[in-house]
Amino acid sequence: MTKQTDVELEFGPVSLVGAGPGDPDLMTVRALRHLEAAEVVLHDNLISDEVLALARSDAQLINVGKRCGDIKDRGLQQEEIHELLLAHSRRGRKVVRLKCGDPFVYGRGGEELEYLAKHGVPTEVVPGITTALGAAASCKMPLTHRTFGVNQVRFITGQSKAKTLPEVEWDELARNAKHQTLVFYMGWKSIGSICEKLLEHGAPADTPMAIIENATMQEKVLSATVSTMPALATKHKDDVSGPVIIFMGSTVTFPDMLAKLEDARPHKRARMMSPDEC
Amino acid sequence: MTKQTDVELEFGPVSLVGAGPGDPDLMTVRALRHLEAAEVVLHDNLISDEVLALARSDAQLINVGKRCGDIKDRGLQQEEIHELLLAHSRRGRKVVRLKCGDPFVYGRGGEELEYLAKHGVPTEVVPGITTALGAAASCKMPLTHRTFGVNQVRFITGQSKAKTLPEVEWDELARNAKHQTLVFYMGWKSIGSICEKLLEHGAPADTPMAIIENATMQEKVLSATVSTMPALATKHKDDVSGPVIIFMGSTVTFPDMLAKLEDARPHKRARMMSPDEC
Repeated sequence: MTKQTDVELEFGPVSLVGAGPGDPDLMTVRALRHLEAAEVVLHDNLISDEVLALARSDAQLINVGKRCGDIKDRGLQQEEIHELLLAHSRRGRKVVRLKCGDPFVYGRGGEELEYLAKHGVPTEVVPGITTALGAAASCKMPLTHRTFGVNQVRFITGQSKAKTLPEVEWDELARNAKHQTLVFYMGWKSIGSICEKLLEHGAPADTPMAIIENATMQEKVLSATVSTMPALATKHKDDVSGPVIIFMGSTVTFPDMLAKLEDARPHKRARMMSPDEC
Repeated sequence: MTKQTDVELEFGPVSLVGAGPGDPDLMTVRALRHLEAAEVVLHDNLISDEVLALARSDAQLINVGKRCGDIKDRGLQQEEIHELLLAHSRRGRKVVRLKCGDPFVYGRGGEELEYLAKHGVPTEVVPGITTALGAAASCKMPLTHRTFGVNQVRFITGQSKAKTLPEVEWDELARNAKHQTLVFYMGWKSIGSICEKLLEHGAPADTPMAIIENATMQEKVLSATVSTMPALATKHKDDVSGPVIIFMGSTVTFPDMLAKLEDARPHKRARMMSPDEC
């Protein structure tokens, strides 16, 4: 090992990189380049194999064991992740901290930046398609829509700690249920309580709601309303094992409306541009 | 011209593609592939030259003349855009409708999908990094942060029609000003009225606020508070000509805090991973 006289050279850069919603083609070009250049990749538990396969063959891949966006830590604690990032940077390695979706939407990117800045580690943040946007595109569910009267988008966490509901103004969410697209991250386990709270606070029973599992990958959608969703979710509770995102609002009905329009046409699905073709 | 017997073959596919916040490296891999394959590109006015340069050299580029995300149409009306998309699809061409940010966040993607579905045109939606996420990453401004008590992200339009404020619950926004990250799209022209409304409804005068121009490109940031921003914006009104996004909430102070931590270190900015290097 050569002795380094300039302490500055000891640090490898750490990039917090958003891996997007799952489909590797939905990573940004910059995210892909960083992943391809990384010597060490510390990744969330639910990063897809297809994404991890894009790392260098000699890169060290470390599963830091948190479920994507799950507030309750599994595996390593957040502080241990900080220390690992620092340790690899100190060895002069190019480190990528690969996160599901976007590093700054329930990704704890801020906490990691702060720790690394305190220790003098150079950092960069590469945004990712957050799951809400990935799921919306693949389901063809607009997040805003003028004629649906929807001009707000809100991302809310479905649980603040394990099994407790977030502190939000339920009456306000209920009141504006149809005029905004509300997206719950990490709400699968509390879906029954979420619907109950919203109904208690006066949300219209027919407010459309959809649960999307494995968005952009082996995607499954359960569509219902805020009043019928709890029963539907209970019925399917053993079928759902992948990451889930929950949409509520008028535009949740848009994909069905669109499918009906398409079905009413004699000719459709002509010459789709497949990923291979384009 | 050969006569087509199967009407299905007449339609070219139309992809609504999010170009991301400006920097071409922040397009997704799929968006890039679609752009590279397109025979016709109908693009928003503010799509960067760097992004347009990625289209095929023989592709027909059509500026459909709306300012990115500007609610008031400039140039073509929305219906004219619909008709253009259909006309090019009918000629069997691969069409990309290239939108700033994401097609479903104030992008009117839903309206275009509906029109195309009615006419039997096959469509696909490719998500993009919405400007809020692009700006957050490049400024290192987390959208959620546990220790800042911020667990909600909200996208709001800064004007509902030219020069009128959106219909939102100002008292609720004011009350929760510090517990969420509020992002105003298209709010530059109404920034004075927005701050005034928030203060009238009880927003803490020291609620941090930032205006970001040309996010991810020749980015400029004006940082202030909800009470000091109107004067600052007036002072800079002639300097701001690019697209603007506005952030409000506790995490707006995060970049300054981070910079202080970095400045306190003797060694920093070691071996940054530049886009060329990685």
